[in-house]
Amino acid sequence: MLQVDLNSDLGESFGVYTLGNDEAVLESVTSANVAAGFHAGDPVVLLKTVRLAKKAGVAVGAHPGHADLAGFGRRAIPCSPEEVYAGILYQIGAVQAACRAEGLDLQHVKAHGALYNQAAKDPDLARAIARAVRDAGEGLILMGLANSLFEQAAAEVGVPYAAEAFADRAYEPDGSLVSRKKEGAILHDADHAAARVLRMLKEGVVKAIDGSEISLRPKTICLHGDTPEAVEMARKLRRKLEDEGVVIRPLKEVLYR
Amino acid sequence: MLQVDLNSDLGESFGVYTLGNDEAVLESVTSANVAAGFHAGDPVVLLKTVRLAKKAGVAVGAHPGHADLAGFGRRAIPCSPEEVYAGILYQIGAVQAACRAEGLDLQHVKAHGALYNQAAKDPDLARAIARAVRDAGEGLILMGLANSLFEQAAAEVGVPYAAEAFADRAYEPDGSLVSRKKEGAILHDADHAAARVLRMLKEGVVKAIDGSEISLRPKTICLHGDTPEAVEMARKLRRKLEDEGVVIRPLKEVLYR
Amino acid sequence: MLQVDLNSDLGESFGVYTLGNDEAVLESVTSANVAAGFHAGDPVVLLKTVRLAKKAGVAVGAHPGHADLAGFGRRAIPCSPEEVYAGILYQIGAVQAACRAEGLDLQHVKAHGALYNQAAKDPDLARAIARAVRDAGEGLILMGLANSLFEQAAAEVGVPYAAEAFADRAYEPDGSLVSRKKEGAILHDADHAAARVLRMLKEGVVKAIDGSEISLRPKTICLHGDTPEAVEMARKLRRKLEDEGVVIRPLKEVLYR
Amino acid sequence: MLQVDLNSDLGESFGVYTLGNDEAVLESVTSANVAAGFHAGDPVVLLKTVRLAKKAGVAVGAHPGHADLAGFGRRAIPCSPEEVYAGILYQIGAVQAACRAEGLDLQHVKAHGALYNQAAKDPDLARAIARAVRDAGEGLILMGLANSLFEQAAAEVGVPYAAEAFADRAYEPDGSLVSRKKEGAILHDADHAAARVLRMLKEGVVKAIDGSEISLRPKTICLHGDTPEAVEMARKLRRKLEDEGVVIRPLKEVLYR
Repeated sequence: MLQVDLNSDLGESFGVYTLGNDEAVLESVTSANVAAGFHAGDPVVLLKTVRLAKKAGVAVGAHPGHADLAGFGRRAIPCSPEEVYAGILYQIGAVQAACRAEGLDLQHVKAHGALYNQAAKDPDLARAIARAVRDAGEGLILMGLANSLFEQAAAEVGVPYAAEAFADRAYEPDGSLVSRKKEGAILHDADHAAARVLRMLKEGVVKAIDGSEISLRPKTICLHGDTPEAVEMARKLRRKLEDEGVVIRPLKEVLYR
Repeated sequence: MLQVDLNSDLGESFGVYTLGNDEAVLESVTSANVAAGFHAGDPVVLLKTVRLAKKAGVAVGAHPGHADLAGFGRRAIPCSPEEVYAGILYQIGAVQAACRAEGLDLQHVKAHGALYNQAAKDPDLARAIARAVRDAGEGLILMGLANSLFEQAAAEVGVPYAAEAFADRAYEPDGSLVSRKKEGAILHDADHAAARVLRMLKEGVVKAIDGSEISLRPKTICLHGDTPEAVEMARKLRRKLEDEGVVIRPLKEVLYR
Repeated sequence: MLQVDLNSDLGESFGVYTLGNDEAVLESVTSANVAAGFHAGDPVVLLKTVRLAKKAGVAVGAHPGHADLAGFGRRAIPCSPEEVYAGILYQIGAVQAACRAEGLDLQHVKAHGALYNQAAKDPDLARAIARAVRDAGEGLILMGLANSLFEQAAAEVGVPYAAEAFADRAYEPDGSLVSRKKEGAILHDADHAAARVLRMLKEGVVKAIDGSEISLRPKTICLHGDTPEAVEMARKLRRKLEDEGVVIRPLKEVLYR
Repeated sequence: MLQVDLNSDLGESFGVYTLGNDEAVLESVTSANVAAGFHAGDPVVLLKTVRLAKKAGVAVGAHPGHADLAGFGRRAIPCSPEEVYAGILYQIGAVQAACRAEGLDLQHVKAHGALYNQAAKDPDLARAIARAVRDAGEGLILMGLANSLFEQAAAEVGVPYAAEAFADRAYEPDGSLVSRKKEGAILHDADHAAARVLRMLKEGVVKAIDGSEISLRPKTICLHGDTPEAVEMARKLRRKLEDEGVVIRPLKEVLYR
């Protein structure tokens, strides 16, 4: 059976500032990465997002990032493993408490933005994140870029791991994501994106920006919901995958059932 | 048997900024209110403080406040019960995660500064805090000003409650604390402070700033550690109480054993 | 000749978060209150907004507020006159530098949100703001609520003053604005709003929410641009005023020519 | 005549957090780099520091940094020239306003911490800072690391420039500062430091950490005041330089008289 989880970053509004259309994107995904208040979100938004996910039957994950609202967590702020460990633990705890209050179990943890990219290439940071996920308890799943150092770190530290792939992002030949600043970094065609995801699931392969092929076996696919176009693309992508017989379900089910 | 918990606010350093002498004050108290990163503290400081408390055998509590580093949580920022509930839950979770990582159970929650004072007089805020404490799980104890609305809120919501008194602060006749801005708000003499605490424990009475008497039955006494004098006073106070036969032990033991 | 300035709050985006449609509203106003980075805005947004105003031929003012991004400056944070003086001076300076770099003179200063409302009723805060405006130099005009303590403070301190009225906000009988939380606080009909403004300019009178009449002589009218409806309303209002023969021009010209 | 300016970073306290002993260090220096509120300081502290400098007869400069209180501006946050230009302009303006209110002219601008180090090696960032200094007006002097790209940027942009050297920091052979994380980065002996400064002033040479010699012609020497030892070292250093006949005076006088 072909199966996969669809995840999206949610809860990124802050105070009077609104970002994304969380309610709409929750209709298309099975796992929500809820911003933990450092790169985006605030306690009220976080709790509201957890409640929306619960109502939509979507599994909740924590989406910790750099404490960098001004840069939306997209700036590679230099950091030590100790700082990352403490910061991730803090943010996981904050989302866990919201889940507990709502009677939910936190499912997974996925680092955000620059921190995700830094850790994907830095073994010490990847391990720091994996350790925080382990020490926060509850059998949390670490979600990380396929073929990155997250995988190794999860194995070393002993936490469940789920490789992530991106439906709408181009890949460098080494498996990292093409920077958002480069042309062609973002894919806009849902058919093309769906075909890429299908090939990942069926053949374990995706084509990099230079035409070379990368092996990857994603358990979860990241979608976006920050623009109306992104929401529409998420919707189409899910439909296409389902039309092809792919079972879309939360990460925990993909991994364990 | 006369018994009481001694608590102090800790972990209030931030980045390069150091505040208080946590290691010294940990020698005198049995419960630590660890700043949760909103009014003071940061994830690295928080984790370090939890570790110091563990090493010192001191029980750990969360010390959530307004998100107000600039005002150290001492400004009465207007807030709704929903905001307070979400913010307290968030902060409790953050401290819980640090405890879990260190193999500790979080013992209690005590609101900080202005939020503590606002909730002591506002039933909706007091209830919002009590609800957050209950919903965060683990049988957390709500610590609150003796005779304040915290007590009522805890009863209504159904969370364990511990009345707190202050060794070094003067009281208004209504049982609230004399504002730090007023003369005579802070007591500096350890003998005098110890005598006050003893009378609270033995007779359930303290003298207010106008000479009238207030009834109170504290389970925990707040000490301070932000200046060398405060640390010295905490040390003396503990010694004097012990000399008088008072058993000093963590709040959980005071309440349940 | 009937004349008036039209002002609007601009530059309130922050990082990835966008708020309002500054370019559109700049077509309707003659003075821009540029967020100074405390309650909203950031240095990049500020500079961009000053450049947009320059391009549109709109006079630039500073719009300082509480350092409260989380509350968008709408929370009445307790503050001392010394803190307000220092904070306003700081923010004025920041906007002045952007103006200087663009070859513009800063025209005016208008406090934002809660600070505006607090100072309108607190003589010490009003004076603190007036003193900051005076000490920042350049003959800056203090913009403040008509009939409020701003007027008195400006006279005492010796700074030019411009009474402000609101086209789309209801008034309490004492001349203060009806709280946004109350029903009827915001007017949505452009014809009605225009008629109110015309009556202010011609007769010096506006009707309060209870039907009583308030005397006021505004030199500037505040419009909003945070929603498409607000932008549309601003456009209509300007057209209607012009159709009635009112000359719309920057505050400096209204006051001095 | 041998002459030099002595500068120090001041005004780095924040809210309840105190850092350094500004009053003491003001006795030893002739130019103060006043923290502009981004990496440290706040409006109240800034204004107070400008007043202290005025009282001590010390010239005031702006000390802008990354908006990074958590990292004290010491983290190399990735940034674009546009962001740096806008941020520096903003911070200069804030300090200028405090100076204007106190009847002072702002003398110079010196970037702080990581931003200083990043710009010293990145021509675009160095130029962005130089342009901000120029556009802020008043003939401000750009203070920058001797032999760094600041010098070139100042020449290109057309702003007055003053090369800075460090009395208590070791140098790499390329003229950059040895990282604080490396052993030997900080010199603790006042005699040694004074001898190094004297040699810089007399011969235009300093010895790098590997024993090689670097040519430099500093107009100003940076001292520190964040610890009692640093304050004492500053005091000794000034005395020794004066004993050797060096005239210590504000940067503006060193450059133009």
